[in-house]
Amino acid sequence: MAFEHPIRIYWEDTDAGGIVFYANYLKFFERARTEWLRALGIGQQALREQSGGMFVVADAHLKYHHPARLDDELIVTARLQSSGRAALTLAQQAWLQHAPKRQLLCEAAIRIGWVDAVSMKPARIPPAILEKFDS
Amino acid sequence: MAFEHPIRIYWEDTDAGGIVFYANYLKFFERARTEWLRALGIGQQALREQSGGMFVVADAHLKYHHPARLDDELIVTARLQSSGRAALTLAQQAWLQHAPKRQLLCEAAIRIGWVDAVSMKPARIPPAILEKFDS
Amino acid sequence: MAFEHPIRIYWEDTDAGGIVFYANYLKFFERARTEWLRALGIGQQALREQSGGMFVVADAHLKYHHPARLDDELIVTARLQSSGRAALTLAQQAWLQHAPKRQLLCEAAIRIGWVDAVSMKPARIPPAILEKFDS
Amino acid sequence: MAFEHPIRIYWEDTDAGGIVFYANYLKFFERARTEWLRALGIGQQALREQSGGMFVVADAHLKYHHPARLDDELIVTARLQSSGRAALTLAQQAWLQHAPKRQLLCEAAIRIGWVDAVSMKPARIPPAILEKFDS
Repeated sequence: MAFEHPIRIYWEDTDAGGIVFYANYLKFFERARTEWLRALGIGQQALREQSGGMFVVADAHLKYHHPARLDDELIVTARLQSSGRAALTLAQQAWLQHAPKRQLLCEAAIRIGWVDAVSMKPARIPPAILEKFDS
Repeated sequence: MAFEHPIRIYWEDTDAGGIVFYANYLKFFERARTEWLRALGIGQQALREQSGGMFVVADAHLKYHHPARLDDELIVTARLQSSGRAALTLAQQAWLQHAPKRQLLCEAAIRIGWVDAVSMKPARIPPAILEKFDS
Repeated sequence: MAFEHPIRIYWEDTDAGGIVFYANYLKFFERARTEWLRALGIGQQALREQSGGMFVVADAHLKYHHPARLDDELIVTARLQSSGRAALTLAQQAWLQHAPKRQLLCEAAIRIGWVDAVSMKPARIPPAILEKFDS
Repeated sequence: MAFEHPIRIYWEDTDAGGIVFYANYLKFFERARTEWLRALGIGQQALREQSGGMFVVADAHLKYHHPARLDDELIVTARLQSSGRAALTLAQQAWLQHAPKRQLLCEAAIRIGWVDAVSMKPARIPPAILEKFDS
């Protein structure tokens, strides 16, 4: 079961090809990821102030299947694929919210690593975060 | 009475000053404007296909009062300030959704003109649109 | 005499209207402003580390005259219009680099204020900066 | 031998982590790709008008090694890795322009496919384009 987050397409998201600019799916995936973390009780700004660390994207692999257009409604998902001591890999998808069935627009595997916010060096993910994923 | 639209601040919205990048308020104002038009029954993509015209921003005056930060929740408003044959002026505001009371972050007067989508020349706003504002 | 900075239009700058997304002119004006400050010997990252302060945009008034499109070459200008103890106002323009003569696309008056980078409170512009503008 | 394109980091490129927002490397890679195509005599806007087709990104795999910061100067490269009838794969890198030697910030394999600009269906890359890469 994946977390789902709705996203509407605005002018700012499109390009002169008449479709959503492909780099913006990374933004959509991050919004869904952030809301998923928030739903698990993980606030990123608060975390950074408390722990001195933050997640950064270490690797992103995106596949584009179909374009989205102005005014479209997307459902963007986030699901934990694998986890380690210092990094998590998420499987994320963007779907066009369509009758009679959804159409897959873009999918990604995104690895996020935990780093010290000042030195940017990799560090162990705080146990309090990892516990949230287990429950 | 102004139309209200909630907006959450994500990493994509911020800059290295630790605050929301000021140009992004134009995006926030447009999202609210689009949802306000949609609530009035005006879909921009459909309009363009039917009428061959579209709204473009002709003039924008922004005043920045306080910064927003990662994870903040904003309320962005839109209200018709004045209307002519070929252009509308909207008053828009971005507020920090705060207890005990809201804080004004940014306000703008934005004039949008109706143009032919191919020639980009100014044109009269379709009466069907203007009627929506009267009701 | 205004400082001039060339800017090329890429896919990222455009929207589904087939033209440059209007909010992006704020980015273009900032790039030109930054290069103008750099040409005067003012590095913003270095300044922030040394003085603890930074410039933030307090007010922006943009007028849009003609659209730019993919692959266009723009000349973006910056010129000091007025200066005070805590803020500067700049006049900036974006021109389409065209034979036989340039076409004005967008113009702006942008007021930037000096603030403490932590408290975000207004502060006096360091004299070392103001001296650069006098020479 | 890879094509090289210089890119300066501005406020618009950064996020509240104090570093370049990772999605923006897709923009940097596209700017370098566009300049490389232009250097080969391939103008994308002109191509679209003449052939009715355009390149779209089909697949992007990004690896992030080190962050870039405000005011940094990057060198972004583009090199043809493999080519087929309907798609090309490019190897691209972003380097920090540093003494005494460059530091690799981000690298990507980006597959761009040729599509009909209206239907968005895959199509054969015009021979005139493929010939440019052979020379």
